[in-house]
Amino acid sequence: MHTHILLDHGSGGLASQRLIKDIFVRHLDNALLSSLNDAACLEMSGPVAMSTDTFTVTPLFFPGGDIGSLAVHGTVNDVAMIGAVPRYMSCGFILEEGLELEVLDRIVASMAGAASRAGVQVVTGDTKVVPRGAVDQVFINTTGLGEIRTTNLPQGNRARPGDIVLVNGSMGDHGLTILAQREGLRFQTPVQSDSAAVHNLAHKLIQKIEDVHVLRDPTRGGLATTVKEIAEQSKVSITLDEWNIPVNPGVQEGCSFLGLDPLFLANEGKMICIVPEDKAEQALGIMQADEHGVRARAIGRVSDGHPGQVVLNTAIGGTRLVHMLEGEQLPRIC
Amino acid sequence: MHTHILLDHGSGGLASQRLIKDIFVRHLDNALLSSLNDAACLEMSGPVAMSTDTFTVTPLFFPGGDIGSLAVHGTVNDVAMIGAVPRYMSCGFILEEGLELEVLDRIVASMAGAASRAGVQVVTGDTKVVPRGAVDQVFINTTGLGEIRTTNLPQGNRARPGDIVLVNGSMGDHGLTILAQREGLRFQTPVQSDSAAVHNLAHKLIQKIEDVHVLRDPTRGGLATTVKEIAEQSKVSITLDEWNIPVNPGVQEGCSFLGLDPLFLANEGKMICIVPEDKAEQALGIMQADEHGVRARAIGRVSDGHPGQVVLNTAIGGTRLVHMLEGEQLPRIC
Repeated sequence: MHTHILLDHGSGGLASQRLIKDIFVRHLDNALLSSLNDAACLEMSGPVAMSTDTFTVTPLFFPGGDIGSLAVHGTVNDVAMIGAVPRYMSCGFILEEGLELEVLDRIVASMAGAASRAGVQVVTGDTKVVPRGAVDQVFINTTGLGEIRTTNLPQGNRARPGDIVLVNGSMGDHGLTILAQREGLRFQTPVQSDSAAVHNLAHKLIQKIEDVHVLRDPTRGGLATTVKEIAEQSKVSITLDEWNIPVNPGVQEGCSFLGLDPLFLANEGKMICIVPEDKAEQALGIMQADEHGVRARAIGRVSDGHPGQVVLNTAIGGTRLVHMLEGEQLPRIC
Repeated sequence: MHTHILLDHGSGGLASQRLIKDIFVRHLDNALLSSLNDAACLEMSGPVAMSTDTFTVTPLFFPGGDIGSLAVHGTVNDVAMIGAVPRYMSCGFILEEGLELEVLDRIVASMAGAASRAGVQVVTGDTKVVPRGAVDQVFINTTGLGEIRTTNLPQGNRARPGDIVLVNGSMGDHGLTILAQREGLRFQTPVQSDSAAVHNLAHKLIQKIEDVHVLRDPTRGGLATTVKEIAEQSKVSITLDEWNIPVNPGVQEGCSFLGLDPLFLANEGKMICIVPEDKAEQALGIMQADEHGVRARAIGRVSDGHPGQVVLNTAIGGTRLVHMLEGEQLPRIC
């Protein structure tokens, strides 16, 4: 009947119930969600991994994804990075009065598709509607739960001298795509977000390699900031070889044009994997055999140099120290 | 150094790390949160209850509480209402560029106090900063996990003819307080929010009564909407006696003045408890002995009349049918 979100849709009354039934339950349907109790009751075995992320990306739809699928991928990946198998998610929507119902419907449908492909269920949710101007269209929080089935979990403080640093593909695609969309820029080589759930690849690595030391997804702040964090947490030095770091031609082109560094741009379907040297080749093979790791590369090495230091051997033969992102290159990328 | 939130604080880089350390970790400190991994690893026994809620209340501080403690109480209560013992929470903050750091600090300190009093740990979090105007000051999502330690859990569809309906205190305090604050209204008798965590009372009821049929917190939509939902889910008729429903004098006064019905106003520290008739007195005694149930009353009865119907016997001797909240009395109350 209505075509836009009204304040009534957040009242907790009749209009809220209709919205929940017509959009959320329709797309995300499962027995746990449909019971519509205040909380979902979940059977889980062993220790539980919990991670939360809020998504405020603008524009809502972009080449390679949208806020709905991104909200699933981001949380699934965070849960997977500590070695857990993602199982359940909650979602909390904040909607702006006046948002088109058709837009919300597309977002929730995309979320449902991403959850289904990733093998996770959205089991509980919440919807708030705020007056026009109190939020920009729609923000989504997702909180994920995973089952931890192994010991010897990867952690940010487990990088050891001699270890090899791997990535599963090109850097900076998500960040540059959002920026280009927002500024209306087009490059000769089109760019698109790498938004994807990479938990299956993470699971394979952990199962087959056994002593994966670190897994981390280089989202906000990009590869550079995340590697710097790992170096600090592990109290080691990490050297990266710039010429081995995959960057797509469109991203390279856009970064040159805009004066940005792809190593500081966000990724949403990438992981940094640090393993002992004698396992690096096997890990690289596992990555390259996965749909989300075809362009995986070894990009650097851990040493016992200055603790917390990250050195980049540049493509033109120099070296420079890598610092964390200082200041914001681009807000609202995720 | 800075006194206000900058976009940098959401970059994932150095400024983000400082904010997390100086405000979030400082107040919410615990070993799980301080590890700063992408996800927290939690030891839980038995089935897990999961609930999520987003808080957009304005004003941020109000008599009886603030958005920080409210975000803890709301989620703790939702987890408790399905019979679980709340253990862990995540929190996701959306901050507006320009928010005073001192305001954020007070909110997080209040959240920490509420979590500590409720015996739950905030184990993982996320912070996004959006440009001025993209959100109104600060919104918070909390997602809670609880341990389910009993079978025979209360559920919305378990009300049975003959059961007695109890509440643990006065209705409408939170809703009217927020409204009065926002409109700058003062009443002869001051009002304040009932925001509180009532999980200990819920736990006592479930442990001692064993067959509590329904527990539900009457938040958005108030008592009337929540009782109507229960009548529909359980396919029973419920009759409420208006003269037995506790309403504080200030709330009564404000409602008369504004033409509002306290039965449709939000509560944030209340529960509806439905038990077999022969357990009603015992349940009432347990409630009245708890700090959050001193004014508990039996307010109605379940019958096998028209399924889904709620009848109110009014104070002036009439009867009327109670419907769900249609339209929004007041947005952004929680």
